[in-house]
Amino acid sequence: MTQKFDRSELFTLASGLLAQSGLGKDKADVVTELLVQTDEMGVTTHGVSMVPYYLPELASGNMTSEGTHDVVSDNKVAMVWDGNYLPGHWIMTQALEACMARASDMGMAAMAIRRSHHIGCLSTLTRIAAQKGFVCYIATSDPSGKWVAPFGGVEPLLTPNPWAVGYPGKDHPVLIDTCASITTVSKVREHINSGTEFAHPWMLDAEGNATTDPNVVNAEPRGSILPVGGVDHGHKGFAMGLMVEMLTQALAAHGRVEAPTRWGANVFLQVLDPEAFGGLEGFVAQVEHLNEACRASKAIPGRGPVRIPGDRAAKTGRASAQGGVALPDEVLTRLSAVAAEAGMALPRPITD
Amino acid sequence: MTQKFDRSELFTLASGLLAQSGLGKDKADVVTELLVQTDEMGVTTHGVSMVPYYLPELASGNMTSEGTHDVVSDNKVAMVWDGNYLPGHWIMTQALEACMARASDMGMAAMAIRRSHHIGCLSTLTRIAAQKGFVCYIATSDPSGKWVAPFGGVEPLLTPNPWAVGYPGKDHPVLIDTCASITTVSKVREHINSGTEFAHPWMLDAEGNATTDPNVVNAEPRGSILPVGGVDHGHKGFAMGLMVEMLTQALAAHGRVEAPTRWGANVFLQVLDPEAFGGLEGFVAQVEHLNEACRASKAIPGRGPVRIPGDRAAKTGRASAQGGVALPDEVLTRLSAVAAEAGMALPRPITD
Repeated sequence: MTQKFDRSELFTLASGLLAQSGLGKDKADVVTELLVQTDEMGVTTHGVSMVPYYLPELASGNMTSEGTHDVVSDNKVAMVWDGNYLPGHWIMTQALEACMARASDMGMAAMAIRRSHHIGCLSTLTRIAAQKGFVCYIATSDPSGKWVAPFGGVEPLLTPNPWAVGYPGKDHPVLIDTCASITTVSKVREHINSGTEFAHPWMLDAEGNATTDPNVVNAEPRGSILPVGGVDHGHKGFAMGLMVEMLTQALAAHGRVEAPTRWGANVFLQVLDPEAFGGLEGFVAQVEHLNEACRASKAIPGRGPVRIPGDRAAKTGRASAQGGVALPDEVLTRLSAVAAEAGMALPRPITD
Repeated sequence: MTQKFDRSELFTLASGLLAQSGLGKDKADVVTELLVQTDEMGVTTHGVSMVPYYLPELASGNMTSEGTHDVVSDNKVAMVWDGNYLPGHWIMTQALEACMARASDMGMAAMAIRRSHHIGCLSTLTRIAAQKGFVCYIATSDPSGKWVAPFGGVEPLLTPNPWAVGYPGKDHPVLIDTCASITTVSKVREHINSGTEFAHPWMLDAEGNATTDPNVVNAEPRGSILPVGGVDHGHKGFAMGLMVEMLTQALAAHGRVEAPTRWGANVFLQVLDPEAFGGLEGFVAQVEHLNEACRASKAIPGRGPVRIPGDRAAKTGRASAQGGVALPDEVLTRLSAVAAEAGMALPRPITD
């Protein structure tokens, strides 16, 4: 079940909760704006539902509440920042501004970021640049985490390593948002909490057997999440995972070598301006030609039509703008708990 | 069975064959050098075995034998070239030189190339930059080809869309070389020619059933190659495929819209200089830390040790340098045929 809420009331609650936990008002507003945009796109796992996770991080000081990032190196189109464990949404907003400005000037810019806090939904970030006509690639890893084994091995050594790319389409951006493992840590936790198994053998136990059981990650020795491709062709997902660790940690010259123990994010961000290559008009023509061919193509019998990544987010975005932001019950339960503790009230749901 | 050959004798034969078919000597030498390097790395499907495929392309004029590429746009770190269907190895050699020089100056450079001919083994190319301390990403698509259906669909609309990334490691580069589909067109042809099925259901028939039968690509209506992830999580491979088509065709503002009918390659090439980010020393330290953890980790019982992409190529490279270039019988059969036709002799194999 979901209930719909007024955007500004949701914003006031979420920003108020973050500010009450010590985050300055401008940072709290920047973080909240992106969380609400994420809910508006329908990705409610990464929207205001993150606030209950961020509050204890702020309280413990694991998420830094004041100050700014440090510039480690700046070579115009190539930059390294130290995020000082500030809120990832705030860091990424600054980083996107910097990379978009330089891509406008020079055609392209990239940045490796060490020690950011959680950056949330990657598509929310790539969409900002894609809506302005840029191609935007973001990858992230957590050098304190070990969840995915190298292909052929049984010891978890890598994180799921999400990566996303957003780029302009005709009516709305294409928003690819995926990762190098078959499933994510959140999905594993969901299955453990609900006592359910995966529909497919997406996990690997410590003896090297593929399994649908999410609990292998809590066994001793620990099992792992399989890379994209699974036991069958998981060398492809492993390759993708190595690439993300390289872009996010090796280019930042900070990562597993330093063995951080704090929940954090290393990030690689790149912005390209199609105008500096073959031009935006020709770019969109090619993108839309393929997208339309895919959407119009014959679907597997019994399945819905072929969708392009970003199509559903665009549709949900229009519905949210018209009828309010839909949040599922489990998010409302978590939000209610932290709101009550802070002496705040949940907004009233919109009734039709 | 394989037989070993002296590098320079193999070079003389391959370059001679290309030159006799009208390719200028310097271009023939550049192409041959990369083909032999590919064989030396052990990728004999993409080495001198390509010569018998290139000769009829030269003869028909589908592979251009004279002239040079056109610069479509040049914005220092962002470039577009038109390859005029010149040999891909020659185009890519020029493109790598341009991108490496600019990455040295500015930290990073990228290029989209339209209308190249076949560029061969991507790792051979990324290795050139990785050995000089750069990160090098290459992706390629063929806008005249349709082999992979969008996830959820049954009509082949995309090419397998190979991508590779090479980057410096401690003793030798990491060489990731993969694609967005589970298997490749060459593997499909091999299975058709040998009358064998795939070990796993890596194909999709026109009704949407996964199958081990390679012949579905010749059925009417045509079947397709499944994207990475297969029927289970193929949305991930489809996303990767869309990204490669975007980088190679949309940034080049030339691709499926123009509906070329000629065997060709669109390419995206990017070179990053770790020195412009966090420094090469810190880069290699992070890369090697993870690589060593993977190599030393516990393998799945009954399987060999965990390998990092590039490890095998480095080992084969050392063996080739010591004992000669090993070529399998099927390559020798094809080479013998074209050599005989051209009045040339195969070199004598090295005997131990």
